[in-house]
Amino acid sequence: MQATWVNGTATDQINIADRGLGYGDGVFETIAVIGGYPQRLPQHLSRLAYGLARLGFPDQVASQVELDLAQLPLCGDQTVKVIVTRGKGLRGYAPPQTVSATRIITVAERALNTEKMEKGVVARVCDYRLPLNPALAQLKHLNRLDQVMARAEWQDPNISEGVMLDAEGFVVEGTMSNLFWYDPEKGEVQTPLLDRCGVKGVMRDHLIGVLKRENISVVEGRFLPSVLMQANDLFMCNSLIGLWPIVTLDNKHYDVGPITRLLQSILQREIDCE
Amino acid sequence: MQATWVNGTATDQINIADRGLGYGDGVFETIAVIGGYPQRLPQHLSRLAYGLARLGFPDQVASQVELDLAQLPLCGDQTVKVIVTRGKGLRGYAPPQTVSATRIITVAERALNTEKMEKGVVARVCDYRLPLNPALAQLKHLNRLDQVMARAEWQDPNISEGVMLDAEGFVVEGTMSNLFWYDPEKGEVQTPLLDRCGVKGVMRDHLIGVLKRENISVVEGRFLPSVLMQANDLFMCNSLIGLWPIVTLDNKHYDVGPITRLLQSILQREIDCE
Repeated sequence: MQATWVNGTATDQINIADRGLGYGDGVFETIAVIGGYPQRLPQHLSRLAYGLARLGFPDQVASQVELDLAQLPLCGDQTVKVIVTRGKGLRGYAPPQTVSATRIITVAERALNTEKMEKGVVARVCDYRLPLNPALAQLKHLNRLDQVMARAEWQDPNISEGVMLDAEGFVVEGTMSNLFWYDPEKGEVQTPLLDRCGVKGVMRDHLIGVLKRENISVVEGRFLPSVLMQANDLFMCNSLIGLWPIVTLDNKHYDVGPITRLLQSILQREIDCE
Repeated sequence: MQATWVNGTATDQINIADRGLGYGDGVFETIAVIGGYPQRLPQHLSRLAYGLARLGFPDQVASQVELDLAQLPLCGDQTVKVIVTRGKGLRGYAPPQTVSATRIITVAERALNTEKMEKGVVARVCDYRLPLNPALAQLKHLNRLDQVMARAEWQDPNISEGVMLDAEGFVVEGTMSNLFWYDPEKGEVQTPLLDRCGVKGVMRDHLIGVLKRENISVVEGRFLPSVLMQANDLFMCNSLIGLWPIVTLDNKHYDVGPITRLLQSILQREIDCE
């Protein structure tokens, strides 16, 4: 069961001249709804607005999306996907002088995978490398062929995620998640810096804040995969799954660590407080 | 006036769950039709098949597009745009096990800009840099935010094209065209190598072949913008415009050169022969 709207009208169709299709000219958000409440909605709207601004969309588009979302008939546990494109365009790459953005919303049921949250998942390091592109780094834009190509590297349903490296070999993210781990030597949680590529996840930024509030040192930096081989408490996160421990990465095994469990319990409490 | 088909059915709508919209998971072609004849159709179909294969689409998709195109009611001077996507997908980047591709065709009228062909155009060097991404280089895929961002740098209608450099500062292409020029010192035509980024245009490859047949030396390589400042006969090309001389690039002026005129006359003869 899913429900869909385009610019406030119930439909699942868009025009083939839309720049979202032709060029991937837009951004998207995926928001978890728990007990009828969209989780971290202000943060999602803020990232959406930031992405639209970086792409040069008019200011009012993010507010229109906020209005759309406020009118959604949400209930229970759902997933909301929002796609915002630069709308229909004339032929050619030049953005239209007057942008009439397309706002696409899909609401679907959400089944939380509690087993993966508890027991953890298997991941692999992808061969496909993320190109360095500071101009589009951090944005959750619609040009996602890099992720498609990386995800196409495996069919094994037992593997839940692929760790992506950048063109220089530094760890960036998972195909659909951000990554954190604990470096026992330095006594700090580490996560990749996303200044040259990667998607700056809402859950990632939230967890950085949580770690700081818990007085756990967290460092964004450039890390080679060898760092992960010495790490504990490796986990992946995004707004939909929450936080999944990674218990196997290629040939290396990890125990589910105390920081992982602490963050999971905090995320759980935050839901209860809603 | 334009006519549109999706998977052989006359419509201008696609489903919002299409991976072309969500991820830019697909490729496209733009084909010039002159006097009812699609120009260089085998080359376009061949590039389409190559791009689909690189993205891991099933073999038969390119043949389905060939059938679609054979049934089009073409007449006069038109532009055919073909978009092929990996179709509707489940949520997530993993390509579906069984791909049901979406084939989108738009036929529109084509107005040839003979003034730009004759008198040449003004271009500028873009600030936006193309990221190095060998895994997707050469493909005319649907992830075109780089071109959108570069094209958004200017609104001046007197500027027809932007020259794009890669992350290391080498010349790659125009936002919508490939580039050639003559190096008088080396006595050769030069065009950027597209092994790390850029779109390998059908017209580009055709012109390389024409130059070779005319015994004019043509070299693909890495060239800095300074090379263009010493060049003659700078021109841009693509399947729709044919070949436009560039007479101004930022502050540098060029005469329309003899190689440009030779190639234009050969392209003109090829049309007449159809």
